[in-house]
Amino acid sequence: MKGVLCSRTDARLVDVAHDFPRQDVGAAAFWLREVLPYFPPAVHLAVIDPGVGTDRAALVVRAGDHALVGPDNGVLVPVARALAAKDGGSGGNDVDTEDEEITSGASEPEPAVFTWEVDDPASRTFHGRDVFAPAAGAVHEAGVEDVETLDRVTPTTKHVDLTFPEPAVDEDEATGEVLVVDGFGNVVTNLPGDLLDGRYGEQVELNGESIPATRTYAAVEPGERVVTVGSHGNVELATNQGRGNEAFGLAVGDRVRLTR
Amino acid sequence: MKGVLCSRTDARLVDVAHDFPRQDVGAAAFWLREVLPYFPPAVHLAVIDPGVGTDRAALVVRAGDHALVGPDNGVLVPVARALAAKDGGSGGNDVDTEDEEITSGASEPEPAVFTWEVDDPASRTFHGRDVFAPAAGAVHEAGVEDVETLDRVTPTTKHVDLTFPEPAVDEDEATGEVLVVDGFGNVVTNLPGDLLDGRYGEQVELNGESIPATRTYAAVEPGERVVTVGSHGNVELATNQGRGNEAFGLAVGDRVRLTR
Amino acid sequence: MKGVLCSRTDARLVDVAHDFPRQDVGAAAFWLREVLPYFPPAVHLAVIDPGVGTDRAALVVRAGDHALVGPDNGVLVPVARALAAKDGGSGGNDVDTEDEEITSGASEPEPAVFTWEVDDPASRTFHGRDVFAPAAGAVHEAGVEDVETLDRVTPTTKHVDLTFPEPAVDEDEATGEVLVVDGFGNVVTNLPGDLLDGRYGEQVELNGESIPATRTYAAVEPGERVVTVGSHGNVELATNQGRGNEAFGLAVGDRVRLTR
Repeated sequence: MKGVLCSRTDARLVDVAHDFPRQDVGAAAFWLREVLPYFPPAVHLAVIDPGVGTDRAALVVRAGDHALVGPDNGVLVPVARALAAKDGGSGGNDVDTEDEEITSGASEPEPAVFTWEVDDPASRTFHGRDVFAPAAGAVHEAGVEDVETLDRVTPTTKHVDLTFPEPAVDEDEATGEVLVVDGFGNVVTNLPGDLLDGRYGEQVELNGESIPATRTYAAVEPGERVVTVGSHGNVELATNQGRGNEAFGLAVGDRVRLTR
Repeated sequence: MKGVLCSRTDARLVDVAHDFPRQDVGAAAFWLREVLPYFPPAVHLAVIDPGVGTDRAALVVRAGDHALVGPDNGVLVPVARALAAKDGGSGGNDVDTEDEEITSGASEPEPAVFTWEVDDPASRTFHGRDVFAPAAGAVHEAGVEDVETLDRVTPTTKHVDLTFPEPAVDEDEATGEVLVVDGFGNVVTNLPGDLLDGRYGEQVELNGESIPATRTYAAVEPGERVVTVGSHGNVELATNQGRGNEAFGLAVGDRVRLTR
Repeated sequence: MKGVLCSRTDARLVDVAHDFPRQDVGAAAFWLREVLPYFPPAVHLAVIDPGVGTDRAALVVRAGDHALVGPDNGVLVPVARALAAKDGGSGGNDVDTEDEEITSGASEPEPAVFTWEVDDPASRTFHGRDVFAPAAGAVHEAGVEDVETLDRVTPTTKHVDLTFPEPAVDEDEATGEVLVVDGFGNVVTNLPGDLLDGRYGEQVELNGESIPATRTYAAVEPGERVVTVGSHGNVELATNQGRGNEAFGLAVGDRVRLTR
């Protein structure tokens, strides 16, 4: 894929991640949404593609000043919404990310979604190299604002959606689930971090166990568990210098209940 | 190695792979041959080097508009032949890879092979840093066409060869072997992909078992096995969203028999 | 982190390593000291940070023509000393690393250490993104020589120190310990490599076992053990094409005794 990109553009290439869990569209969608809004305007190429070679479409999405290229399986949707919200959908201004709250955004315009025409027969097993990298190179060369000028591009209103499950928060407790487990074994839930406001330093009840709520991993001894707020702003279950997923016995999709 | 390169050249550095199986010259030779022809002309530095510090030579190879730098253990040979065939050995023209069939090439001139003089005593345990990275930097600065102008370079006709085993294809069956297993667990064989022409959608007999021949991994349910053609053009044994090597019980060098 | 850096600077980004053992300050300090002196002058960003979010300071260190940015846990200390020694503390000259002995350095001036002011509340769980990447970008834009001009920077003489354990070398034997195990399983000790001078080709007694001292891994059959000198100059215990740590049964901190 890098060879194809280098053959078509002199753009600076930045490796974001090569270690997303294989075939896991939801985890990739989560991490892309967390990571890409920190970048300046760019063409982002994301290939998490268990349906490679099937008739699922290839997409080019313009979101604010950014473009996203990848398969139509939902992986681009959450980050596209985050980028469009961040940039206010202006589609043309240079954004100064220096002091900006990246989750803000008064207007929340929808991203512009396009299909990218795939040759038949393209390869069936490596669209990253044969479809998406050429598309990303072409989008970069045309410019994000001028995606529509590309021959292979067609506006579409139909594409696979992907939303993360919403937690249920009531007066006594909040019930959510595990969204992803990161490379350190930290368990990222969909519970909003503000559930811990005013409770740091206390014990909270998490899935029936009493666990300290802390602002940092290192607030407890190595090997002990905490309930904290991760860099994404969600409640996170972790072990100081250990693997929270093993210590809590939790995996993606497992239920997490936090009493208030 | 990157520090040494950055000290000697402003060339753009592109990481191709850091996860080749350790010490496995054959696997690295296979992947380099598959990957590097997609790059525009470049100096490619490849250090898969179980014989580091022994008296095996260091090589610089010019193949088409590309140069290859690495140990004389065969790892550079298949990709050098592919690059020379691709570029027609012209050694000077700018190649437009945009729409080119990369496996074509009417003429197939041999790559030009040079030894690179190694200081004695060089380090014995890290020639990537102490020998090959300085060589790659020097070749880049001199220019691929002018490799001969470098003091440490001497033309040679003697070097370690490496060829991949050929399959036996007769009227009733084709017998080959496993060349490599990729990071997804897909089993890459040396059987040519056209053995599946006209058979997609049918069951084929693979090592005595009946397996569906499909164009895509996702043509079967997750966890089920397929015989397909990988991005390299060879017959590949895979499990949809699983690890084919485990499901088929196959490893590098194992025999693969496909009835026709 | 890369997104934050790309938003603040056009500097060339070079990935040095993403596979240091998690949370292991000592191993990271060792590898940074081994690797970074091979780079031309640069701003080096190192986040190995088990104390993230606690009140440990953030540091900017100027060492020769280089700057280091990271947490105040000792991880920057050995490499800062190596860089300051290498560049002679001149702080301004362009160093030609081409033919230079990088471990030399007549004068050994101390690195200049500064704290970097952290906003309160900064994030508590990802200072790499929220503190250190912005700091590295600012240092790069200001220039290594002008670190003091940055508002958030304050000179300090107090910081966490980190030194590697010294071996005990007497007439009959040398006793040291395992500093790190590398990605190949090679066991790096703190015993100086010159303990093997004049003994290559002979058996040496290592923790009571008789092992051949060799200049290369490949001097013995695959699977056999050697005592050699690694690329860092220390005594290293390895298995040819295997994992020395498993074959020797040694881990970080274990004692290593070599008779003379």
